[in-house]
Amino acid sequence: MLSVTILGNNSAVPAHNRHPTAQVLQTLEHTFLIDCGEGTQMQMNAYKIRRSKINHIFISHLHGDHYFGLIGLLTSLGLNHRNNELHIFSPKPLKEIIDLQLKAANIILPYSLNFHVLENEEIIYEDKKISVECFKVLHRIECWGFLFREKKNLRKIDAGKIKKYNIPSSWYESLHEGKDFITDKNEVIKNELLTMAVTPPKSYAYCADTGYFEPIVTKIKGVDLLYHEATYLHALEEKATSRFHSTTKQAAMIAKIAGAKKLLIGHFSSMYENLDEFKIEACETFENTEIAEEGTCYMI
Amino acid sequence: MLSVTILGNNSAVPAHNRHPTAQVLQTLEHTFLIDCGEGTQMQMNAYKIRRSKINHIFISHLHGDHYFGLIGLLTSLGLNHRNNELHIFSPKPLKEIIDLQLKAANIILPYSLNFHVLENEEIIYEDKKISVECFKVLHRIECWGFLFREKKNLRKIDAGKIKKYNIPSSWYESLHEGKDFITDKNEVIKNELLTMAVTPPKSYAYCADTGYFEPIVTKIKGVDLLYHEATYLHALEEKATSRFHSTTKQAAMIAKIAGAKKLLIGHFSSMYENLDEFKIEACETFENTEIAEEGTCYMI
Repeated sequence: MLSVTILGNNSAVPAHNRHPTAQVLQTLEHTFLIDCGEGTQMQMNAYKIRRSKINHIFISHLHGDHYFGLIGLLTSLGLNHRNNELHIFSPKPLKEIIDLQLKAANIILPYSLNFHVLENEEIIYEDKKISVECFKVLHRIECWGFLFREKKNLRKIDAGKIKKYNIPSSWYESLHEGKDFITDKNEVIKNELLTMAVTPPKSYAYCADTGYFEPIVTKIKGVDLLYHEATYLHALEEKATSRFHSTTKQAAMIAKIAGAKKLLIGHFSSMYENLDEFKIEACETFENTEIAEEGTCYMI
Repeated sequence: MLSVTILGNNSAVPAHNRHPTAQVLQTLEHTFLIDCGEGTQMQMNAYKIRRSKINHIFISHLHGDHYFGLIGLLTSLGLNHRNNELHIFSPKPLKEIIDLQLKAANIILPYSLNFHVLENEEIIYEDKKISVECFKVLHRIECWGFLFREKKNLRKIDAGKIKKYNIPSSWYESLHEGKDFITDKNEVIKNELLTMAVTPPKSYAYCADTGYFEPIVTKIKGVDLLYHEATYLHALEEKATSRFHSTTKQAAMIAKIAGAKKLLIGHFSSMYENLDEFKIEACETFENTEIAEEGTCYMI
């Protein structure tokens, strides 16, 4: 089960009461923070995200609207006596920036801060339930997308049926994995008769900031929810291209050719106060599109 | 004419919808920004402070709740095509921090940023109308207070009286300065008869963050409005002392022995949701005390 809560949906200059980029991806086990624009800790207060639950932070790139809120969050966690290790995945210069600010304040955090430098397109975090992979997107400076993919859930054994068919426990692992049971007389008892389906694994891809960049399609093929930036309406395609940003239609086109189930667009330019046209334009190319609204939790 | 608008009145960890420290001191000619905690540029939007008007920023010290909003403000000014020079007065390490973040984002600001390092207790800015002096306060790291002092306004000449008494123009400067007119027959015509009073010059002192520190009293003697931090209620005096912060009563005592006209207290600890007790306690020692409320403009 995955859900994403939008804490900021605006591009660089805060306006119209919209904030710079930050999102929280929640699973049963994790609260992943993706980007951390200025004011993220206040937005967490406003939308009841418990900052102490965050153990992994993913920073796409070092334009300020994606990380200027990080140092404030880190120091607040320290003042709140955090002692769990915190992992940060980001481009290399971030560590030097954070270290310099901690030094200037003469602060030693009471928890350990583990920086992981993004270098290659690869799995950067993995446990039994989920994996996180980074991939390159197209921006003016080094910038990364992130793919969060739940692992296939094992089928649940139906205790009643196990008893009825007298299945030995040595077969349980195979049944979990979906295999049929073979009796001593070589009769096949279908797995579906002995186990129950569980929620299929879900996936979430985060693509910001980026110009229109088809190579990401192979990375995010068939994703359940695709977040793709759409800084401008399509009339400003040329401006978008020159600034390594995308338009509504470009975001929708990526969702379409990637076969995404649903598209969420955000990172709106401050020049737009009303966002209605963003949805209309994107839906023309990819119908299942939603505007990323601050404070809204999108179930995946 | 001076006024101060509070953009943030909370101490380090934002809570109860209160923000970290930032204030704007306005004169007819200037919009001075004093400290710039995270979210200051959003607070400026909320309270209609025009960020483009700011040409001088004063940073008291490098604890994050007093400057983490600065880099976001500086980059937003750049994105808004500012080209006027901007002056920043702060402890030395700030320049390196800002430069490093601009470099990581590959940003060259379209305006020039002029850093002035605070080193000695002295006048750091001065023009015909106002002077700004910095002085040391008592904190865990290097920390400065600021005294803003309007210069004495010249008296206005009453054109009708000048005509009536037939005063030659060579006397105008002396009249502006308050001197009496002496006729050829050695008669004295009192200045008050020939000129009108103007608003007396006002002063504002900013003292945050600081423990109880009487040496500042000589600097801020007779100030019209004293802003002094009061992080804790007086029951936590020991905690305040150990953290180089002040209590309500300590802030009020400084106001009292400095002979301030009025006291404004702020930088409230996140442990307090309700602030009523702060005013009650401070008023017991110094009656003319107000709580610094976010979004409120205090006329001086």
